[in-house]
Amino acid sequence: MNTQLRVLVIGAAGYVGGELLRLLLGHPQVASCTAHSRSQAGQPIARVHPVLAPLTGERFVAGELGELAAQHDVVFLALEHGESARVAAAVLAASPTVVIDLAADFRVADPALYEKFYGAHPAPELLPRFTYGLADVVGAALAGCAAISVPGCFATAAQLALYPLAQLLAPTGVIPSLFAITGSSGAGVRPRETTHHPARAHNLFAYSVLGHRHEAEILQSWRRWSGRSDASARLLAHSGPMVRGIYLTLHAALPDPLAAGAVAAAFQQAYSGRPLVRVLDAPPELTHAVGSSYALIHATQSRDGKEVQVMIAIDNLLKGASGQAVQAMNLALGLPETAGLRGVGAFPC
Amino acid sequence: MNTQLRVLVIGAAGYVGGELLRLLLGHPQVASCTAHSRSQAGQPIARVHPVLAPLTGERFVAGELGELAAQHDVVFLALEHGESARVAAAVLAASPTVVIDLAADFRVADPALYEKFYGAHPAPELLPRFTYGLADVVGAALAGCAAISVPGCFATAAQLALYPLAQLLAPTGVIPSLFAITGSSGAGVRPRETTHHPARAHNLFAYSVLGHRHEAEILQSWRRWSGRSDASARLLAHSGPMVRGIYLTLHAALPDPLAAGAVAAAFQQAYSGRPLVRVLDAPPELTHAVGSSYALIHATQSRDGKEVQVMIAIDNLLKGASGQAVQAMNLALGLPETAGLRGVGAFPC
Amino acid sequence: MNTQLRVLVIGAAGYVGGELLRLLLGHPQVASCTAHSRSQAGQPIARVHPVLAPLTGERFVAGELGELAAQHDVVFLALEHGESARVAAAVLAASPTVVIDLAADFRVADPALYEKFYGAHPAPELLPRFTYGLADVVGAALAGCAAISVPGCFATAAQLALYPLAQLLAPTGVIPSLFAITGSSGAGVRPRETTHHPARAHNLFAYSVLGHRHEAEILQSWRRWSGRSDASARLLAHSGPMVRGIYLTLHAALPDPLAAGAVAAAFQQAYSGRPLVRVLDAPPELTHAVGSSYALIHATQSRDGKEVQVMIAIDNLLKGASGQAVQAMNLALGLPETAGLRGVGAFPC
Amino acid sequence: MNTQLRVLVIGAAGYVGGELLRLLLGHPQVASCTAHSRSQAGQPIARVHPVLAPLTGERFVAGELGELAAQHDVVFLALEHGESARVAAAVLAASPTVVIDLAADFRVADPALYEKFYGAHPAPELLPRFTYGLADVVGAALAGCAAISVPGCFATAAQLALYPLAQLLAPTGVIPSLFAITGSSGAGVRPRETTHHPARAHNLFAYSVLGHRHEAEILQSWRRWSGRSDASARLLAHSGPMVRGIYLTLHAALPDPLAAGAVAAAFQQAYSGRPLVRVLDAPPELTHAVGSSYALIHATQSRDGKEVQVMIAIDNLLKGASGQAVQAMNLALGLPETAGLRGVGAFPC
Repeated sequence: MNTQLRVLVIGAAGYVGGELLRLLLGHPQVASCTAHSRSQAGQPIARVHPVLAPLTGERFVAGELGELAAQHDVVFLALEHGESARVAAAVLAASPTVVIDLAADFRVADPALYEKFYGAHPAPELLPRFTYGLADVVGAALAGCAAISVPGCFATAAQLALYPLAQLLAPTGVIPSLFAITGSSGAGVRPRETTHHPARAHNLFAYSVLGHRHEAEILQSWRRWSGRSDASARLLAHSGPMVRGIYLTLHAALPDPLAAGAVAAAFQQAYSGRPLVRVLDAPPELTHAVGSSYALIHATQSRDGKEVQVMIAIDNLLKGASGQAVQAMNLALGLPETAGLRGVGAFPC
Repeated sequence: MNTQLRVLVIGAAGYVGGELLRLLLGHPQVASCTAHSRSQAGQPIARVHPVLAPLTGERFVAGELGELAAQHDVVFLALEHGESARVAAAVLAASPTVVIDLAADFRVADPALYEKFYGAHPAPELLPRFTYGLADVVGAALAGCAAISVPGCFATAAQLALYPLAQLLAPTGVIPSLFAITGSSGAGVRPRETTHHPARAHNLFAYSVLGHRHEAEILQSWRRWSGRSDASARLLAHSGPMVRGIYLTLHAALPDPLAAGAVAAAFQQAYSGRPLVRVLDAPPELTHAVGSSYALIHATQSRDGKEVQVMIAIDNLLKGASGQAVQAMNLALGLPETAGLRGVGAFPC
Repeated sequence: MNTQLRVLVIGAAGYVGGELLRLLLGHPQVASCTAHSRSQAGQPIARVHPVLAPLTGERFVAGELGELAAQHDVVFLALEHGESARVAAAVLAASPTVVIDLAADFRVADPALYEKFYGAHPAPELLPRFTYGLADVVGAALAGCAAISVPGCFATAAQLALYPLAQLLAPTGVIPSLFAITGSSGAGVRPRETTHHPARAHNLFAYSVLGHRHEAEILQSWRRWSGRSDASARLLAHSGPMVRGIYLTLHAALPDPLAAGAVAAAFQQAYSGRPLVRVLDAPPELTHAVGSSYALIHATQSRDGKEVQVMIAIDNLLKGASGQAVQAMNLALGLPETAGLRGVGAFPC
Repeated sequence: MNTQLRVLVIGAAGYVGGELLRLLLGHPQVASCTAHSRSQAGQPIARVHPVLAPLTGERFVAGELGELAAQHDVVFLALEHGESARVAAAVLAASPTVVIDLAADFRVADPALYEKFYGAHPAPELLPRFTYGLADVVGAALAGCAAISVPGCFATAAQLALYPLAQLLAPTGVIPSLFAITGSSGAGVRPRETTHHPARAHNLFAYSVLGHRHEAEILQSWRRWSGRSDASARLLAHSGPMVRGIYLTLHAALPDPLAAGAVAAAFQQAYSGRPLVRVLDAPPELTHAVGSSYALIHATQSRDGKEVQVMIAIDNLLKGASGQAVQAMNLALGLPETAGLRGVGAFPC
């Protein structure tokens, strides 16, 4: 395996693309990093991502994607939802060692479930090629995967909160409530009404009420883990006044009490040895996760054992996108899982 | 009844006191407004509350509270929790027309329930004197009350979300999840670690996990409304990066489906004619409630009728404290319910 | 004079329009308030300005502007720069009692000076019709004016800082430095890159370096007040991370020392009796001005008398636009100057 | 020279100490990093600085400072102003290779100038031992220094803006205006009124009017560079609503015009080859500097050549403190100047 990797980022001009470049430019096994962007082709990367100025003097390239992909070992797709499906066939045909998609297009294996949330799938024949890359759960099983789909930001937080509970909650059939709030950077680089500073700066509001798209992949995993095809979970999505980060609080009330310490033990066990998850003994603070690819989790239960509360904080652009994508690359290629991901954010921030 | 009221605010140097003064100085039936503060006695009000400078040149007074109370028609207690109970007897003995307490001390009628959350009650003999003043629900029934206890900020939002659901949810015995997030002004005027700007400005975190004190009054009402002494509800409290406002999202999953439109109808009916509650057809935004004494609510149910989601936005210092206190005064004295409360905030904010 | 005024706001769908409506709906002499908007015609006002929902159930109207103007006593133009000049002739021809323009179009009397900053003037023949309405300085001299041009937000702060210094600085010929920083609401309601929340939330940057357009009207006044046609002043404009408010700090170094207390005395004298200016004995804080139409000023000089520092805080949408516009209306019509303007903002904010 | 350095940070529990630890734990030539704190001795570093949890499992130590210093190659003092002077003698006596102080105590070589701003110097006999470490200007001249005093945060920004102008402005005798605004993290880790979130979150205000302490070191340099012992400069300090960063805008009006391009050329020349200064062709944005140890500068002049405007953005805790301190260490020890300092911040932030 080549550990001096040539990496291509397609759609590198957005926020996720920028953070991918930042991580890859500091990754010890990445020899070169090509940034593709249709809209910014020819522009210096540092003009679009000014913080990268000290790290690179290169420019965005355009070009036929299959051809570009053929010249690289790893290809990241950091495109708008729907765009990935349009270009994936060409990229896969070029047979880079691994293709990692950050859009929603290949997250849901079942086209019917996908369609319920997103409409008809544009390239269902490609779905079997992709492995769902929830890196902190799947781990070493990503080794050798040629195509990986990175979970959504809310979906990452939700699933990391749900995963250890599958066996505890499955028999009950309860629907966990997943209250989540995201910063504005999750909406991307293009100005829109909901991210207009005067309207957003001190605001907070629910959206996609009783039907957020990330529920598709959450349900896919929750049903697999719990072994119940009728298992359900509800994501209650909110937009908040911060730029970065997702905070998610899970609450579930059970018909019968859990054994004392059952919840904490389940989380300790689930994430034992997982290097980018930190299980804490108190509620995490969002700013302690921002700027890093670590998930911070606290899980507890009520004294009577009949309620569970889990809190998780992640950086939406790192653990929820670029960081997890690099983690998936590391796992796929057999590199150290945390290579290029041990940086932590400035603090306070 | 005297509609040129002499009003006394005890503990007027805090944020709640400041907002009370602002409302009262603009209230058409308030003739005079005395601001009491032990710590700021003798200081100009405008030095402590600079935005009030155009409205008043008066100073904070000190003095024996019973004596002061005897010279006023209305007395507000805007003291720290525990302080109200220490001074209430003297104030009540002076027999002003109405005493309105904004602390937690007299919110929970049952000393046993109180004790579970707050410790032994310092003046249980006074508890029967106070009426719980959830103004938007109790309404005209506050007329003539001589002592009113104003609900807590989270508890106000939680109860306004729960109240219309009592009959729908009572038979199910489900425990509604009440995810709530508050701005930093709720922590008061005194600097502390959790409100240190560098640590709070972009932060978000859960606290009082599975046991927030406001659950005491929430349970008190929820059990009364649902007619089930074992009814439960869970407040999941969070601190957020904004200064003002509370956003609360209720989620409940039911064993059996509700009739189509049942939730929306229950809210329309519950708040029909209530002048300071606005039931919306879309999720409220927090900034649309900030600066006013209005509660903004949206309530809906899933297509299959088995899940309920309610979202409510309030200003924590107005609807969640000072505004509701003035509303209670208006109701107690038979004044127009919205007198002095029709101001709305500057926007955008 | 009719003191039950019928008021028309043309271009009422923006932030300045929204704040104008809020002030006018609470103004004791305003009987009716018509909101005109081409883009939002037919929409409920409260859908565009949700905080106004408790105050009005009316909708935006469209229609021929001259005809509309003829049915009203007062017409405010809250249009984009350049738009006012296009519609002013028709509005003026309808002869409402007073027309008040909030755009830049009629602020600069000298077409040559205007052109230097804005390009050729679209309607120079109308320039003599308008009086420049720096309300806190011009005051009662606005009485009877039929057309008033409201100063720009930065220009308001700059001129209120400069005005009392004219006689002190004129002989020196020094160029005062006017360092100013504005919140994002000054950029208007339309999303753009510089107001994209992720990019703006914690950001600060200079713009219009050595040539901000508001210098045109600042120079116009500064030259008149100082009696020197070559007098100059420099506005150093910055965008900051807050939503509302402008903070401006003036610094000037003089060749010869001023007498002790000269600066403070000049400000006390200049604003003595002016009801919407507060001269303070310490630097103002921005949040103490936000939400009100008051200007807060502190002016001082160095011990050696050779340097002047003036700090001023205003709400950019109120004192810097809508509030000053209403103040100008009051002055033009002989109403109490502060009518409808005594409200202060919620605090903390 | 030992390039596997043993480093001691005294006073490591504050914000500056935390950022120092973060940089040092990622520094390629740092073999071990001891964190000293009297208040937190025995506590895990990660409990005080949670973002460092992935980087270290160590605890804060206490102990006699001379003894500790003797066991390390490099000693950083990250103490409150005044504290450094109390411990410096003991630390210097232990003869580590280099001592780097981040407080104000040893920045001003002339005790009389120091006294004017800070009061009597507590240890004037030590002043000659320290070199003033404005790293981007002094550069290689720090090689071999045994004791370095790191400039203040405002003072760093001010001097980097002033340095290239010394020859251009010296003949004129003008007093440059240095408008500067800092984030709240500059006030340190201890909550206080001016950093109380409700009061600070959207606020902005001038302070230390016409007499900020950092003027002492600014004047010291400005006089040396300009060769005029009477040269002056004025720092107009402001506190802003962001957590991190300093933005400084210099303005100066000259009696005679500069040659075209003179200002830009002076900056290009002054910082040519300086690896941690970036001279830009447009105004910097604050967030592009935050999270890095780079200074971003734009310098320009008016068309008539009679006015200069310089804008500089730095991270107050990195370039303005910890980053510059590590840069000084690198220079003192002959390491690559940017070792451990090439990280850039997450973006957007």
